Amino acid sequence: MIIVGERLNGQFSDVGKAIQTKDKKVIQDLAFEQLESGADYLDVNVGTAVAAAEKAEAMVWLVETIQEATDAPLAIDTPIDAVMRAGLSAVKNPPMINSTNADPEQLAAYIDLALQYDADLIALTMDKGGVPNDVAKRIELGANIVVAAMEAGLPFEKLYIDLVAIPVGAAQPQAGIVLEALRQMQGVADPSPHFILGLSNISQSTVERSLLNRIFLVMCMTCGLDAAIADPMDTELMDAMITTELLLNRQIYSHSFLAAYRSSK
Amino acid sequence: MIIVGERLNGQFSDVGKAIQTKDKKVIQDLAFEQLESGADYLDVNVGTAVAAAEKAEAMVWLVETIQEATDAPLAIDTPIDAVMRAGLSAVKNPPMINSTNADPEQLAAYIDLALQYDADLIALTMDKGGVPNDVAKRIELGANIVVAAMEAGLPFEKLYIDLVAIPVGAAQPQAGIVLEALRQMQGVADPSPHFILGLSNISQSTVERSLLNRIFLVMCMTCGLDAAIADPMDTELMDAMITTELLLNRQIYSHSFLAAYRSSK
Repeated sequence: MIIVGERLNGQFSDVGKAIQTKDKKVIQDLAFEQLESGADYLDVNVGTAVAAAEKAEAMVWLVETIQEATDAPLAIDTPIDAVMRAGLSAVKNPPMINSTNADPEQLAAYIDLALQYDADLIALTMDKGGVPNDVAKRIELGANIVVAAMEAGLPFEKLYIDLVAIPVGAAQPQAGIVLEALRQMQGVADPSPHFILGLSNISQSTVERSLLNRIFLVMCMTCGLDAAIADPMDTELMDAMITTELLLNRQIYSHSFLAAYRSSK
Repeated sequence: MIIVGERLNGQFSDVGKAIQTKDKKVIQDLAFEQLESGADYLDVNVGTAVAAAEKAEAMVWLVETIQEATDAPLAIDTPIDAVMRAGLSAVKNPPMINSTNADPEQLAAYIDLALQYDADLIALTMDKGGVPNDVAKRIELGANIVVAAMEAGLPFEKLYIDLVAIPVGAAQPQAGIVLEALRQMQGVADPSPHFILGLSNISQSTVERSLLNRIFLVMCMTCGLDAAIADPMDTELMDAMITTELLLNRQIYSHSFLAAYRSSK
């Protein structure tokens, strides 16, 4: 399971404040803690900590600050094209692009960008019409993403399709739609693209965030999810993830399978 | 989700001792606690608390002791035909038979028994050859069970097919085989038979029993499980179950969805 650590995001008050005050220690400590907890990538998002005009500069500062402390791969997370390009230009190691939607023009441009930076690319199954309300449209957009990657020569192992989780309190049937779309997308290409989710979306505005996050993660993994943008410092989430990997027969059983998985990282 | 409370089993030392000393309070307290925690049925199993010759009498004592305290439906749990018949003859309300295997002779006899007592019937997808090692054989036996029930006139809503969980430490690929068999059995008949598991089997001889039980429960529910023989007093297990029901859109979201589910029982 590939975990993209979500905590270096300016929407969290500690990170937002650190971006505003240029406090490198807070950023670097969070980078270390996430990697020690099992993150494979570190998501980097300036959030709303600074004004729009300063976001590109803040992204570069964040990327450079993290890279002073670790060589771990970064996921540049922004919906703004200029901020994305600024972040990518500052990375040392092959990064992840988080994200493009499935609108043909943006998708083509971001596949080019991924090829230019040898980057992984997260592509969301949504377009100008927003997030589809049904399974069929999500799969149609997922298939469009696969075809666009193939035609442009982006290897499938660098493609992360995100079927888009919606808060359960806002649109409850969407959880089941994501699960069914995940199931139906399995085997769409060989080798398979990855399937990723911004997991914490499912629990937004709820009061049982950690519980909802980890149960939905287990359900999605059962249907083929192999990557998640999530909080690796949530120990119960990681225990649930590791136990699911075990029951899917991806790790050999031992009494200490939790510790064994963690030390294999 | 239908929960068959597993705790009234002589294999647990408190219950075994209570059977030997005829301590009604221990039995009745465990009955109440399981029902308060959300059990729909109470499993009743004398285990190895008494010698073989005394098991039928012990089963009758257990059934009568529980029925003095509650009218909740009981699942008579024994592999011994005489003990099963003794238990069934003592029940007041329509019980559950736990269980028959898929061997044609035993299956036919136990379907007759279910019809005679207006009982639900748990039928395991195993036969004289033991538990199948693959998906196809489990499904073949599952289909045989469905056909036998149909031909004998046992309504599908009274049929509980158990695809047989095996301890993950003993035969690790079996967990995935159960999940895939569950998936493939969906839609086998209309109305659907129930799908049940003796959940705690998955974690036997492991040191993370509660964690393995609840994660496997979530995975199985994602693939169509709608009943489990499990410990309703394991709060984390029940939280995981309720959260899965929510994400499968079987309960309307509210901030207090955990409490709402419990109070709806």
